[in-house]
Amino acid sequence: MDGSAGVANGTDKYVIGVDYGTLSGRAVVVRVRDGKELGSGVFNYPHAVVTETLPVGDAAASDGGTRLPREWALQVPNDYREVLRRAVPAAVADAGIYPADVVGIATDFTACTMVPTLADGTPLNEADGFADRPHAYVKLWRHHAAQPQADRINALAAERGESWLPRYGGLISSEWEFAKGLQLLEEDPELYAAMDHWVEAADWIVWQLCGDYVRNACTAGYKGIYQDGAYPSVEFLAALNPEFAGFVSDKVEHRIGRLGEAAGRLTAEAAAWTGLPEGIAVAVGNVDAHVTAPAARAVEPGQLVAIMGTSTCHVMNGSELREVPGMCGVVDGGIVDGLWGYEAGQSGVGDIFGWFTKNGVPPEYHQAAASAGLGIHEYLTQLAATQAIGEHGLIVLDWHSGNRSVLVDHELSGIVVGQTLATKPEDTYRALLEATAFGTRTIVEAFRDSGVPVKEFIVAGGLLKNRLLMQIYADVTGLQLSTIGSRQGPALGSAIHAAVAAGEYPDIRAAAAAMGADPGDVYIPIPENVAAYDALFEEYKALHDYFGRGTNDVMHRLKAIQRNARSSSPLDSAAEAPAESRTEATAGVSA
Amino acid sequence: MDGSAGVANGTDKYVIGVDYGTLSGRAVVVRVRDGKELGSGVFNYPHAVVTETLPVGDAAASDGGTRLPREWALQVPNDYREVLRRAVPAAVADAGIYPADVVGIATDFTACTMVPTLADGTPLNEADGFADRPHAYVKLWRHHAAQPQADRINALAAERGESWLPRYGGLISSEWEFAKGLQLLEEDPELYAAMDHWVEAADWIVWQLCGDYVRNACTAGYKGIYQDGAYPSVEFLAALNPEFAGFVSDKVEHRIGRLGEAAGRLTAEAAAWTGLPEGIAVAVGNVDAHVTAPAARAVEPGQLVAIMGTSTCHVMNGSELREVPGMCGVVDGGIVDGLWGYEAGQSGVGDIFGWFTKNGVPPEYHQAAASAGLGIHEYLTQLAATQAIGEHGLIVLDWHSGNRSVLVDHELSGIVVGQTLATKPEDTYRALLEATAFGTRTIVEAFRDSGVPVKEFIVAGGLLKNRLLMQIYADVTGLQLSTIGSRQGPALGSAIHAAVAAGEYPDIRAAAAAMGADPGDVYIPIPENVAAYDALFEEYKALHDYFGRGTNDVMHRLKAIQRNARSSSPLDSAAEAPAESRTEATAGVSA
Repeated sequence: MDGSAGVANGTDKYVIGVDYGTLSGRAVVVRVRDGKELGSGVFNYPHAVVTETLPVGDAAASDGGTRLPREWALQVPNDYREVLRRAVPAAVADAGIYPADVVGIATDFTACTMVPTLADGTPLNEADGFADRPHAYVKLWRHHAAQPQADRINALAAERGESWLPRYGGLISSEWEFAKGLQLLEEDPELYAAMDHWVEAADWIVWQLCGDYVRNACTAGYKGIYQDGAYPSVEFLAALNPEFAGFVSDKVEHRIGRLGEAAGRLTAEAAAWTGLPEGIAVAVGNVDAHVTAPAARAVEPGQLVAIMGTSTCHVMNGSELREVPGMCGVVDGGIVDGLWGYEAGQSGVGDIFGWFTKNGVPPEYHQAAASAGLGIHEYLTQLAATQAIGEHGLIVLDWHSGNRSVLVDHELSGIVVGQTLATKPEDTYRALLEATAFGTRTIVEAFRDSGVPVKEFIVAGGLLKNRLLMQIYADVTGLQLSTIGSRQGPALGSAIHAAVAAGEYPDIRAAAAAMGADPGDVYIPIPENVAAYDALFEEYKALHDYFGRGTNDVMHRLKAIQRNARSSSPLDSAAEAPAESRTEATAGVSA
Repeated sequence: MDGSAGVANGTDKYVIGVDYGTLSGRAVVVRVRDGKELGSGVFNYPHAVVTETLPVGDAAASDGGTRLPREWALQVPNDYREVLRRAVPAAVADAGIYPADVVGIATDFTACTMVPTLADGTPLNEADGFADRPHAYVKLWRHHAAQPQADRINALAAERGESWLPRYGGLISSEWEFAKGLQLLEEDPELYAAMDHWVEAADWIVWQLCGDYVRNACTAGYKGIYQDGAYPSVEFLAALNPEFAGFVSDKVEHRIGRLGEAAGRLTAEAAAWTGLPEGIAVAVGNVDAHVTAPAARAVEPGQLVAIMGTSTCHVMNGSELREVPGMCGVVDGGIVDGLWGYEAGQSGVGDIFGWFTKNGVPPEYHQAAASAGLGIHEYLTQLAATQAIGEHGLIVLDWHSGNRSVLVDHELSGIVVGQTLATKPEDTYRALLEATAFGTRTIVEAFRDSGVPVKEFIVAGGLLKNRLLMQIYADVTGLQLSTIGSRQGPALGSAIHAAVAAGEYPDIRAAAAAMGADPGDVYIPIPENVAAYDALFEEYKALHDYFGRGTNDVMHRLKAIQRNARSSSPLDSAAEAPAESRTEATAGVSA
């Protein structure tokens, strides 16, 4: 907190940004005129992520509840309200401002995270008689049990040549609204019938704040298959399942709000929870990754923002619609109203580095790191930093969690080429860092080749603190790289949206210019490194295409053999999705 | 030792086998009539392997001597004599026999290990004024500093279409007689001029025992390029280097003895060293791997013996000459007189497992192994043994030390396909075990496809104690596998040769039948495992051919990039050849 702003004087105005992550919510108080972050508060969700047994209403009773199948990941909606009751007042207190000087509030959320509700927004788990029904709870983004439904959606869409499919790189995720909704219908039709709305958590929390349900343009487009003013057709839905024919009209369709708009005004009830003035602007909801772009002042076409955590989410605006192969989605106004928002992703980044340090580094390295007072990542990074490019002799394909962009194939897997008896852990670690940079370059080239050139590269997320990694990304992509100057990128981005919703700025661009964070560090590509990585990237690309584009489908066959070998085992596919290893600390961003 | 034989009674006869390994010599006393091993003695070479500085005559003075370049590996000849003085009497004492009942002695040696001598067999390092000259010492098999010479030999032989080249899979090793000899000439021509004989240590030690220099048919063929009664031509040698034209006639050529023959009779001097009777038979020299075949009673065509240690050496007799792609060599009488001896090899096996446990296994595994009172290999094996085939989802190419058979390409490297965030150390460990089995199957299929079918698979060497590994080899190859019943395979094999040299048996086959070890364990292929591995082997083969046969030369390019990146570094290529990790304990056999 900044002492000069410690006592509010009525001449400055403030906004609140609240970032809802996977395990906690974080509120930040930001000064409207310059984006200064004055205070923050964090509240950890009491129920965290529910993967084993339902809490059945009582946070403490996690023993006797209904057992959840594997791949499930639920949350409890009231935990989100608690963030408003706890983190917001804490942030205001930390900032030392007068609450009366707050003019707006905005939120961002993990996505696609879905809440089934009654007509008034009551989550079904809070409705009479449904607390013991798993499908009555929030399905967190990483709930992966709707894969069979996603597979059917994709097969049918491809077969029918649905025009929206290429907008999503040819593949709808099991994490998204339609797959999760279809699972709910097919596994608990009674609950499906009782559900009035199938609501993005990003919109549900706004509903809690302002009393109005407004679907935000971002998730409606990226997660809700809303393209060119329409959702998938009744015929398509009926072909999936006759009972699903009315899914859009009955459960999903609703007014859509543009990003930066006010969804409504803070209700008396929400004012009481938060301690903020009743009637202040509540912005339309948004997604943690996408809201980071204005926080990084990256709202112009060609400014690529990579939110690098356990996985990486890339967002970039473009002035025209292009179908870029393998992206997660392109949505009109999906990042900034008036531009096409492109999203791409790498399904494993920090997750892969973490997996390696946990599973592939011998005791002496851990001891040496501890002796040097370093974390294992820092220690390996120090060792790797002394190497010349190519000295380790390795090429890695970074597909340990599959490949989202540009291959859109979750059955791919990781590969290491070039091991010798002299290969050391720091060699592999560096090769893993580089592999993810090659993965990003592949995305950058796909954008370029589709007529959406990337001109600037901005990094947000937990991994920006690794300077070697940042220089590698600059050298591999050949792009100047800057890191976001704020440690609260999403919350700051939400605060910017709050300021626009409150009418303090005419639009997100203007607000971002005034309130966005100054760049943190800037990394300039080093010409000889760029040349050295060009050669290695050619090798990456050849392996990428050989293993990823069907020349040798060994990875698919190995997965099939593996599933078959495990089929008698109760551990089954859960071992493939170590969801528990994803934590807020390294993630920061949903998949 | 067997109590019933504890007191010699004059009716039983005995022979001595001495196995010269990389770090020590081991003598075993064996009963002629049934091959029973009655006692043994070991002596560690005082100078071990000289890689840093010359000892300059005095074993204790290892500080001030001449510094050796990287990739050098020398030994001191007198250490070998010391084995005769120490280990042989110790073995006789341990056996409790009367020395007078010993009728013969035979030796086997690492190869290609070369001694430069004067006309009377005096090693040059013992000759006046040469003790400070590195080239005056023994060049151990793993001395790899003659690679430039080997490269020139191979290029020239390929260019000239030398008929002997296909007998060695198209590649002469830098370890062999000609490459090491050419290095000696070109780096110390004065010493080369002073050298009267360039002697395999296998033959030098026999010379010490019987006073006669006889080249054994095994090393002459496998390491000395002796084929169809001739060495490489004067023209060939002159084209390499005009000064090298007389190499064969001046330094190498000498009487060749068949395996199992007597090279001569024990001299009075050697009788005094060993305590054995003067005049007993001294067998023609032999090589540790090859001599193991009769010890395993595997002297018939189609019986493949794999000596599995840090690397694997495969030896098998055939009744006809075939050119099998990628073998190390095929030599007339190279294993048993009268048959064609085939040798193939895998350059990394136990070495790769060892590398993985040192570099890729996290602390908790080491702790758990220690808590369970297990070595890390045993612990990982236990975990891996619980898996169904294919459950780990991985395929490895076992080329961490390059590939000898069948690709003959030391610039290849290891590869792991199929890693996910759920991949555990035991998964990779099992995949490494399997990869070496797939490598062996590739060799077995090359033999089969060339008309030299493998009918039986016998394993000797340190790795036979891993029962999971043995079952994997049986399942992968589909061959019944038996392990050798003796823990002193090479020394027992030498003893068998001593018995034949002494006239106790008419030939090696008869002696092997009477004296060879009973099989240890027998592993029967399990049909469903064979089928499961057939599918995985198809994947191995596809990757093997893609990376190994030039479709994608990425491994060669990575090595070139690596060398280039390291060229400014004093560590250079030494890091690629961690020779120090090879120890007698796991190796048992030279490359």
